[in-house]
This record gives sequence, structure tokens and C-alpha cells, in this order.
Amino acid sequence: MTRPYNFSAGPAALPEAVLRQAADEMLDWHGSGMGVMEMSHRGREFMSIAQAAESDLRELLAVPASHRILFMQGGAIGQNAIVPLNLSQGGVADYVVSGSWSKKSYKEAARYCRPQLAATNEEDGQHTRLPAPQTWRLSDDAAYVHLCSNETIHGLEWHELPDLQALGSRAPLVIDCSSHILSRPVDWSRVAVAYGGAQKNIGPAGLTLVIVREDLLGRALPICPSAFDYQVVAEHDSMYNTPPTYAIYIAGLVFQWIKGFAFEGRTGLAAIEAQNIAKARLLYGALDDSGWYVTRVASEARSRMNVPFFLPDARLEEAFLAGAREAGLLQLKGHKSVGGLRASLYNAMPLAGVQALVAYLQDFQRRHG
Amino acid sequence: MTRPYNFSAGPAALPEAVLRQAADEMLDWHGSGMGVMEMSHRGREFMSIAQAAESDLRELLAVPASHRILFMQGGAIGQNAIVPLNLSQGGVADYVVSGSWSKKSYKEAARYCRPQLAATNEEDGQHTRLPAPQTWRLSDDAAYVHLCSNETIHGLEWHELPDLQALGSRAPLVIDCSSHILSRPVDWSRVAVAYGGAQKNIGPAGLTLVIVREDLLGRALPICPSAFDYQVVAEHDSMYNTPPTYAIYIAGLVFQWIKGFAFEGRTGLAAIEAQNIAKARLLYGALDDSGWYVTRVASEARSRMNVPFFLPDARLEEAFLAGAREAGLLQLKGHKSVGGLRASLYNAMPLAGVQALVAYLQDFQRRHG
Repeated sequence: MTRPYNFSAGPAALPEAVLRQAADEMLDWHGSGMGVMEMSHRGREFMSIAQAAESDLRELLAVPASHRILFMQGGAIGQNAIVPLNLSQGGVADYVVSGSWSKKSYKEAARYCRPQLAATNEEDGQHTRLPAPQTWRLSDDAAYVHLCSNETIHGLEWHELPDLQALGSRAPLVIDCSSHILSRPVDWSRVAVAYGGAQKNIGPAGLTLVIVREDLLGRALPICPSAFDYQVVAEHDSMYNTPPTYAIYIAGLVFQWIKGFAFEGRTGLAAIEAQNIAKARLLYGALDDSGWYVTRVASEARSRMNVPFFLPDARLEEAFLAGAREAGLLQLKGHKSVGGLRASLYNAMPLAGVQALVAYLQDFQRRHG
Repeated sequence: MTRPYNFSAGPAALPEAVLRQAADEMLDWHGSGMGVMEMSHRGREFMSIAQAAESDLRELLAVPASHRILFMQGGAIGQNAIVPLNLSQGGVADYVVSGSWSKKSYKEAARYCRPQLAATNEEDGQHTRLPAPQTWRLSDDAAYVHLCSNETIHGLEWHELPDLQALGSRAPLVIDCSSHILSRPVDWSRVAVAYGGAQKNIGPAGLTLVIVREDLLGRALPICPSAFDYQVVAEHDSMYNTPPTYAIYIAGLVFQWIKGFAFEGRTGLAAIEAQNIAKARLLYGALDDSGWYVTRVASEARSRMNVPFFLPDARLEEAFLAGAREAGLLQLKGHKSVGGLRASLYNAMPLAGVQALVAYLQDFQRRHG
């Protein structure tokens, strides 16, 4: 029996092979006599799990030796405070607003520093275009520049990250990449800090990944809680407080799954990216070709991960969602702040899932269009 | 086949029935077509899981309507900052130090308020007695009084919580009960705030439980991160940021398991407590009767949950641990700051596990004593 296709924006579908392995190992991990949830985080068994997860992630994303990988808690919303607590030194920080998530980050930062709005796409109220880096108003003395590289709710993605140096800024770039991390490579020459909640492409909610350039450690404000001080976390190899051990284990299984993933002659992250491109092309193509379904985001800013779309008549939404469920297509409701529908196409969504969605879109249009 | 007995101090053993159910439901929770890790936290499936967990916990611990239950992240070490951020208003707070954990709390608080050392048992350097409440130096204007009701590392437990009013203080009592929560009832007439990491008696690491009296909400300092502001978390029913959904699900299964637990004619939390008393009596009795194994904690302060003990000759520890592993008795090594050995007897440890440990203790003494 095939599992239904789950288009949740997060927490989101995980690879079936990962779930099967986790179920198999639930009571006894590798003959240790313990399930992973039951292991001391300081024991050799869990230490080996955490080290493998970190080194697999480093390999997959080609994280350079200059950057530390931290496993934290509190989600990206927690990081909205934790980033300025660690990096702002109470000074100026530049924020680029491109949707709900970056706007939240910008607002929270004001508790700790002087956030400047370097750019926003809010003019039309719908966040449909990305503000071109050439138009940003960057501060001379910013402690960092912050952007959200994929806006989950509005469905915008920065397909190329800005080269801050070329724009005349010496500030490090900080990105919230929660909802597209590991869907594509990262250009680390342009990124000083990348953070994200795990619950889209990595694993269970409750794990937060932070990848931070080592020279930025040790700048935390005195009011930064020890548990959220990047330097303290780094010095303790993410074990200053008990880490979310089971979530790290599942993330490690996902990393292994990505390493073994194959698509169109590619393997690993390259294969994942190729499939993500193919899935997005298929779905946006079907929506565009329909002449009936509505999308709002400018084509160059469309997210590969999160595809918000609308029916010509919102009163059809309930029928759309009920029929989708019957067809084995789950969690397609749009975010309440935007309405409409949304399909999230994270790594664990196979091409066949998008093909099934497209078939349903066409069928629904035939019956109601 | 019996599973080995796992005496880890945390993350710790979980009931086998809970792990089996979690494994069974890993790919499909109740016919939803999704595993619990894959569900939107805002969907009806997960909402029902979270609500059941909260109401079962309220029932088990008899949490009164005056107190809110919050599911948070960051562990008790996170709460060391989050408590003063929420409750101190930058003023005075009284701290009782009875071991490593309460000492950490006291130190961290100085970032946010003026913590006063109301009492300490550090004189002998080993934290072996509890400072009697009658001797505490309580401040007139304390925003709260903080204590750790069970010290995991040193193995001390407050078997009766202080009545602050009777001691002449009007301050609310805040307890870190990470390592004995749900092992016994709580006297809520004396407790304003109780918090704890889940990884001992509740479920996976990464979930933090906070039970807070409602009149204490809304006092957070402006520098309190939104994600950790009790009022914000309460207003959003613990869904301001994405909660650690899978950990909440496992906690819910543990709550169900406790509700159905039976021991010596009792059920539920009363049965759990009765078994915990029986286990502790058995193990301490065997250690005392041995005339060979050494314990340091004063008998009236001994923790039911964490039993540190020592061999007369530390050079025997390696042989003790190796033999224990062979006998199916895992994770008995003491905390590195104290040394020696430690058996943690959380709720999921059956009486038979302690019987097996006692048999091993006697056998090891026969061979090496």
C-alpha cells in the first residue's frame, strides 16, 4: 500500500525509509539494549550518533572548516532573539523583509539592537517580489545583514544569495533557511550564519540547526542565556544543555538518506536539488498552463519548496481539500494569514507525489472549472 | 527476551509499552496516513494529541485551574534564564542551593536580577544535607524563591516542599523538578511555578514542561525572547513557535501509561509513587546493609530517583561496570563531577530491575569485598 502524499508546510513528511528504520530501532539501537530516546547524551552510543549526524551534514552541505555546526532548541522564532543576542552587540543590524518570517525577525530584533529596514517587499501587502539587492539601503556599521532565504508562508525564495561585499557592506550575512535548507547547496563564501528549524527538510520539530562562522563566536550580549550563547554551545559540542537527542538521531537518518539519494544520474544533494527543480517546474507549469488556478509570486522569486496557489472562487476550497484527501493528497490548506491552498514540496516529497497532485488539479478543474 | 535494565540519569529508560506503541504508529497514526512527526502542529490530528497530553498531565498531577501548563523548549538550563526573565522584574530573587543544578540556576540568574543566596549546603563541598527551611535567609522583597526539588547529580530530594508563607515570605515558590516530576504528587498550594526537562520521567529530551500560576504571567522583562515569554506561550497554547511535536506525543503516551499503572492495589500516580518508594527502600537498604558500599547523602535527604554510591576502592569501578553490563544493567556510571556510581530509578524502572541490581551488588561484593 502506498502512503498518502503529505504536502504539509511543516512539520512535514519524512522519507518512508527513515521512518521504517526508526520504528525498527525503537527498542534497541544496534544491539545496545536501549532505544535512542533512552540513551545518556554523554554515552558513547549517542555521541557516535551525534558525531555522524554532524559530519554527514558537513559533507552534504560542504560546510567549510571556518563554520561550526550547532544543534540547538527553540526553533527559528527562538533564533529571532538569539541571533541579535549573539551578534548585534547592541548596535545596528540590517534586515531585509520579504514575507512574514523575515518581518517577525525584524520586529523581535528591536529588543536587543537597532534593526534597520534595509529593504522590504511589503508595498503591495502581498509580498510577491523580492527586493533587488542593488536597491537595499545598507548601513555602514551593521553588525550583520539578515534575510529569510525562503519564505514558507508567501512562497518566495532567494535563488541567489546577495554578495554583500560587492554591495559595499562588510557585514556578515545571516540567513533563516528553515524551509529550504538541504534542498540545494549553499554558497558559504556569502553566508556567515545559517539557521533553521528542522521540521521541514531535516527531521522532527524541536531541533534547530545553526551553522556559524567561528570568528563570530564570543560576541554575545551579557543578557544572552547561556543555553543560547553560540560560543557556549560550540565549546560544549552542542551538549551544554541536554540536546534533543531523538531529533538529532532522526536528522542523522535523513542525512544518510540524502547521501544515498539518486535522481537522473546524480546522487546526494545534487540529486535532491535536481528532483526539487523537476517537482517545482512540474507544479508551477501545471498551475500556469491551467488558465484557472491563480499564483501571485513573481516567477523569478517562486519558491521550489512552498507553492501557494488559489482557486478562482474561494468557496470551492472546501471541496478541493476534501477531494484531495480522498485522492491521498494531505495537508494542502494554505496558511491562515494568506488563505487559499499551499503545496510544500520538501525533499521527502517524491516526483510521483507532484504528478499525483497535478493529475488531481486537472481533474478538479475539469469538474469545477 | 527481556530488555536490559537501563539506570541512565537522563535521557532515561521509557516504558516498553510506550516504545512499542510509538514504533507501531511511526508511519501511520490512527489511520491518518501520517506519522506524528509529519503532522502540522496546527492540524486537528496533532491538536488532539497535544490536548490529550495536557489534560492527562493535569489530571495526573492534579494541577489546579489556577495554573497553566506550557510545553516549551530549551531544557531546565534554558529555564535558568527564562525564569528570571519572566518573573524577577529585575529585582531580588531568593535562591536555595542544594547541589549542582540549583547552583547553576543561582549563577545564571545574576544576568537578569539580584539573586540572593537564601541557603546553601555547600559547606562540606559534597552537598549531602538539605538546608532546613527554618534557617533560610529570605528577602522581604523577593520576586520569587527558587529551589531544585531533586538534585540529579548529588542525589538529594526535598520530600516536603517548604511552606513559604509559614516562613514569613510572600514570594511565590519556583521549583526545578526535572528529575522527579511525576514520581509523586505535588502540593500546589505551595508551588507557583514548576519546571522540568522531559528526559527523565516524561519522554524525549527537547521538551520542557512549565506549570505556572496564571497571575504570574505578563511580568516578563522587555529583553525576554518572545518564544520564551510565559504569557506569549500561554496565549498561544504552547504553539507560538512550532512545539517539539513528537516529544509531546511520546509524553502523552507516557501519561497514558501512568494512568493505567497498577502496583499493590493502587493505580495511576499513587501506584507510581508506591513503586518508587519500594524501589528506593530496596536499593538504599541493600547499600546500607552491605557494610561495604558507601553512600554520602543524609538519610532524610536521599532521593528516590537518583542514588549515587561508591565502592570502597574506586579502582574496582571498571570491573563493576563491565560486570553490570554483562548482567544486563546499563548506564550505572556516576556523574563525572562526583565520580563513583549512580542508579537512577525513574518511573519506567520496574521493581524487578532494582531487584536485579541488588542481586548484582551482593554478588559483586562477594567476589570483590
